Amino acid sequence: MLDRFLSPRRARQIQRLLRNGKLTLFCLLLTRTEPRRVLEEATAAQGQQKSSSSTDGTENASNNYAEFDIRKIFKDEDDGTEEFKRDPSLPYSLGPKISDWDQQRAEWLKMNPNFPNFIASKKPRVLLVTGSSPKPCENPVGDHYLLKSIKNKIDYCRLHGIEIFYNMALLDAEMAGFWAKLPLIRKLLLSHPEVEFLWWMDSDAMFTDMAFEVPWERYKDHNFVMHGWNEMIYDQKNWIGLNTGSFLLRNCQWSLDILDTWAPMGPKGKVREEAGKLLTRELKDRPVFEADDQSAMVYILGTQKDKWGDKVYLESGYYLHGYWGILVDRYEEMIENYHPGLGDHRWPLVTHFVGCKPCGKFGDYPVERCLKQMDRAV
Amino acid sequence: MLDRFLSPRRARQIQRLLRNGKLTLFCLLLTRTEPRRVLEEATAAQGQQKSSSSTDGTENASNNYAEFDIRKIFKDEDDGTEEFKRDPSLPYSLGPKISDWDQQRAEWLKMNPNFPNFIASKKPRVLLVTGSSPKPCENPVGDHYLLKSIKNKIDYCRLHGIEIFYNMALLDAEMAGFWAKLPLIRKLLLSHPEVEFLWWMDSDAMFTDMAFEVPWERYKDHNFVMHGWNEMIYDQKNWIGLNTGSFLLRNCQWSLDILDTWAPMGPKGKVREEAGKLLTRELKDRPVFEADDQSAMVYILGTQKDKWGDKVYLESGYYLHGYWGILVDRYEEMIENYHPGLGDHRWPLVTHFVGCKPCGKFGDYPVERCLKQMDRAV
Repeated sequence: MLDRFLSPRRARQIQRLLRNGKLTLFCLLLTRTEPRRVLEEATAAQGQQKSSSSTDGTENASNNYAEFDIRKIFKDEDDGTEEFKRDPSLPYSLGPKISDWDQQRAEWLKMNPNFPNFIASKKPRVLLVTGSSPKPCENPVGDHYLLKSIKNKIDYCRLHGIEIFYNMALLDAEMAGFWAKLPLIRKLLLSHPEVEFLWWMDSDAMFTDMAFEVPWERYKDHNFVMHGWNEMIYDQKNWIGLNTGSFLLRNCQWSLDILDTWAPMGPKGKVREEAGKLLTRELKDRPVFEADDQSAMVYILGTQKDKWGDKVYLESGYYLHGYWGILVDRYEEMIENYHPGLGDHRWPLVTHFVGCKPCGKFGDYPVERCLKQMDRAV
Repeated sequence: MLDRFLSPRRARQIQRLLRNGKLTLFCLLLTRTEPRRVLEEATAAQGQQKSSSSTDGTENASNNYAEFDIRKIFKDEDDGTEEFKRDPSLPYSLGPKISDWDQQRAEWLKMNPNFPNFIASKKPRVLLVTGSSPKPCENPVGDHYLLKSIKNKIDYCRLHGIEIFYNMALLDAEMAGFWAKLPLIRKLLLSHPEVEFLWWMDSDAMFTDMAFEVPWERYKDHNFVMHGWNEMIYDQKNWIGLNTGSFLLRNCQWSLDILDTWAPMGPKGKVREEAGKLLTRELKDRPVFEADDQSAMVYILGTQKDKWGDKVYLESGYYLHGYWGILVDRYEEMIENYHPGLGDHRWPLVTHFVGCKPCGKFGDYPVERCLKQMDRAV
């Protein structure tokens, strides 16, 4: 297990240390150093109930959270290292090109039989990935709803044998905002070869059917599953013909390739703005704004169906993503007439609060409606 | 799997529905109702980018989170049901007395071989339990630190094959505050017979050694593991001789019994106040305040060693709980000289920010110190 997160060199160091350390430890025990540390800890612990003066030179010694200016913490986060600036004339890349991931992964799985990619017959190992900003939300209740949201995901995943990765790091400053998921997903696929499917889920998407199991077998010949409709993508290139707030991505070369194809519209600034204009022009009903990952995927599938289409499953049989606006007012009707386990319009698997933006200053909808409905959903 | 959270009656209902529903579903598909719903969803979804007027009669239609008064949400939480009021003259109880839990549990495990209480040789199935208030914190950054804290626990538990239960419900209004964990723990033990050890961890305790694996075998003959020192409990009855912010409790009759013994000092009001006076009188160095669960446990062990002592392991070999005050200033020294995997004073498993109270209005320590150090810990 240590090998999974310590380098081989470090693991060997630890083994050597343990071997050499045994005699030293034995002598230490004999000389009874432990009671001394006990006394030190106990004395310190006894002091824990009395206010201590800070020892880290902080000027503001107030114990009052309401008065505290959180920006003092951020100011100190600059560690002095110069931020890496990519040459903007070079095309953006998520990382060094990998062309043999299927073979690398197959080898790894063979060498690590204790980490199979299927945890039961026909049940793939799934990693649910979600996250939020490393900074507090821009309003007093946003983080509370993020907390409710992760609790909701913890509950679903515990029931369904799914692991969770909660990201709070910005891996690439150029790919901020909705694009941040791309570098993260690539990194996780490569560092977790045992994972068969990565399930990305936005922080504003909640599970509303704890009983529904994703029909994994349905996707055995597909690599990318999103809620959406074929006609709306391939016929209309409608910008909301699919949703990238909740999707499944298989851990394979094909996925690395589509991530590489997806990323170039993402880098913030001129690239993202210009790409936004193209997307508004090319897609049906898209408003004017910078390029977003969802529109970019619509564009890719709509223009390169032959290349990618056969491995993409646009799922409309259940709500892998369910737009909250058409669901939340029907909850009572659903409870009256149906039951959990259906996952679809009768009892949606996921209710996705698109546009509510509870972590920001402003949302696209009245705050009270969003928060009340989120409370009902979880 | 459905049986685990649906009653047998409901599960049979679902099975009947599925059988009867197959023909109906087939006909529905033939009549192609799906495109109609697609159109409805698509139209609604297209509206999702435009502000909608609220349909739930909310008066405040502001989209501005900073202006929103969260108390409007709480006001509506009163569902009109009369709150249960226990007769205060009767002794408090966590629930109906159970005397044969070991036999019940053994039978359940036998009937459910797919849910073993050991997930690998000598590795028990563990459920880590933590939680926080269902209401937002009383200051703008508290929930953000709760979020960081649960992410920290998610990371450790994913690496160590431990499941998580995040509680945001107050199960018993009388047992509010630090006592809230008791009804929760009892309920979880009984509803999760597959769990061998329940690991309670406060929301202000963080994992600071991702590599350290708890030495489960050490506790094979014990039911209750807390960080602490025998001398400080059995000789001194020192109120901080152990810590109940992070402990392991085996799922067995003995544990139900000690929970029953532990609970009576908890009910808020006169009982808790009077118990607090007794504890201050009887324990070493305890300040004056209402009864807390930690002091109560010190008292129980200190006065009933013969009854409980042989199954209690007071662990001081590593930091199952590590008081932050004596650890955080040494992080750089630890990084310089040691490595993860030690779990003790050289690289503490858990750093517990006792007294910081990041979810409240005031803590026992300067806010800046607490928050900065919490950031360093995670």
